[in-house]
Amino acid sequence: MRIGIDLGGTTIKAGLVTEDGKIRYKSAIPTGAQRHYTEILADMAKLAIKVCEDTGYSIDDITSIGIGSPGSCDAKNGVLVYANNINFHNVPVREEMQKYINKPIYLENDANVAAYAEYCMGDKNEECFIAVTLGTGVGGGIIMNGKIFSGYNGAGGELGHMVIKKDGAACTCGRKGCWEAYASASALIAQTKRAIIENKNSIMNDMIDGNIDRVDGKTAFDAAKQGDKAALEVVKKYAEYVGCGIANIINIFQPEKVVIGGGISNQGDYLLNPIKEYCTLEVYSGANIGGINIEIAKLGNDAGIIGAALLNE
Amino acid sequence: MRIGIDLGGTTIKAGLVTEDGKIRYKSAIPTGAQRHYTEILADMAKLAIKVCEDTGYSIDDITSIGIGSPGSCDAKNGVLVYANNINFHNVPVREEMQKYINKPIYLENDANVAAYAEYCMGDKNEECFIAVTLGTGVGGGIIMNGKIFSGYNGAGGELGHMVIKKDGAACTCGRKGCWEAYASASALIAQTKRAIIENKNSIMNDMIDGNIDRVDGKTAFDAAKQGDKAALEVVKKYAEYVGCGIANIINIFQPEKVVIGGGISNQGDYLLNPIKEYCTLEVYSGANIGGINIEIAKLGNDAGIIGAALLNE
Repeated sequence: MRIGIDLGGTTIKAGLVTEDGKIRYKSAIPTGAQRHYTEILADMAKLAIKVCEDTGYSIDDITSIGIGSPGSCDAKNGVLVYANNINFHNVPVREEMQKYINKPIYLENDANVAAYAEYCMGDKNEECFIAVTLGTGVGGGIIMNGKIFSGYNGAGGELGHMVIKKDGAACTCGRKGCWEAYASASALIAQTKRAIIENKNSIMNDMIDGNIDRVDGKTAFDAAKQGDKAALEVVKKYAEYVGCGIANIINIFQPEKVVIGGGISNQGDYLLNPIKEYCTLEVYSGANIGGINIEIAKLGNDAGIIGAALLNE
Repeated sequence: MRIGIDLGGTTIKAGLVTEDGKIRYKSAIPTGAQRHYTEILADMAKLAIKVCEDTGYSIDDITSIGIGSPGSCDAKNGVLVYANNINFHNVPVREEMQKYINKPIYLENDANVAAYAEYCMGDKNEECFIAVTLGTGVGGGIIMNGKIFSGYNGAGGELGHMVIKKDGAACTCGRKGCWEAYASASALIAQTKRAIIENKNSIMNDMIDGNIDRVDGKTAFDAAKQGDKAALEVVKKYAEYVGCGIANIINIFQPEKVVIGGGISNQGDYLLNPIKEYCTLEVYSGANIGGINIEIAKLGNDAGIIGAALLNE
């Protein structure tokens, strides 16, 4: 048995996971991100122990504990170098956790962990496998030869911070025109709001009862499914933005597989098909020498816990 | 001894290369690209044999022959899948060459080969090493753990066909806004021409004697060095375009090193410094956890021959 922990800005989730990646039990606590890291990590260790005890296991039955965290991680040393949303700077997560639990502790960036979960629970035969998460931001994880690839400093795989429109929309990272600024759920919501304001006849106005704050990542998709013209345009354009980044990824990596996760990926084929169409036109290949294998991620929100649990040396 | 061949659209260059990558002798013939591939490859084999004989070696003294080719290569099978400028489609280069020379024949894309040469003749200790060639197009080569990485079909590493300005300038590949359409020598020439037309007082007008066709990749740099305002602006903007793609590469790979080659790289620090400045601002890293190691490539035009010669299983 292993433990996987998904350390988020608002919630810490932990799960008891079998060696082959099945979640047996999970539990969660609030992060309390305003607190000192020693307190947060003490609670995280307690949660890990609780997850064992709740299921009749002892911490001694556990092979290892993996943690998926926001921000840049030094996986080798188990140090969270920087995570803006929980205000961690050079926090020795492994060392701190081992004060409470004498087991191997692994730490990795959450998008990398999610990619690793999708890889491990998939065919597991890709030399290069890439996962993209369309959430508040756009996360990326690169799996090379079965291992997470994140560059010499652990900060690589930031696919969302690839500029696709130089001098374009402002990104939270400080650049302008990042993929994240066009293809994240937040970007889709902004695009939807703009379309609603510009199209007074769109049924999206009724769907939100005139309250623009009720727009979410589903609004445009729901209206588009009913044939709303403005919404169809939003969805088409959004799929193009997502597709533009994915075509870039394919031109760079020619990976065996790209999977798309995150909240927006719940739209399934409704999102996937226009992305595939777009990529077919955009991918560089004079002779069209390869198929394009883009899929919706399978594990949903559990990817974080599963991938963290499966981390190893 | 090894032989490295640089198969180009107009010239085939071959060199006798030592096991540690030093060129002992080289020779060249016109490609005659309009001919059938059997003729071109027969001439290429003859050139390889000639390079040996000219230097008192026999083909039996040769370990292997490597070929760097434009286009998409199936390195495993030694097949040139597609190369537009020499009109090769699924040409069995290895098989054809082995009709004349019974030695191991390796085939790889030319940008990958150049990257491999720069890697092999450098520190050779980078887990991830990336080379970018600013020439007619923008070529890319990714070296991972000492090997060329080009995806499952050999068509990866096309860094020049990463869109950096969606819906922007038309690229020869069919996409709009590719890095190549902004950062290649051809793009720089187009940007320089535009600046000349728009700035009648620029000294660039004198430098080209009013003949716009005399603009080349050096025009703007030469004028900028003399303080010409329009030229300074062209160079600044061009460095930004190059830097935008390099910042993307860093955010994706966090490689230990990025080297910049191709004709424009002869500008040295005059090109490199503004790129570094730009990238320092653009690279994603909340904690700025890594230095940025960008250098000018060292091997110049010899990279193709050297890298090809050093190819192996």
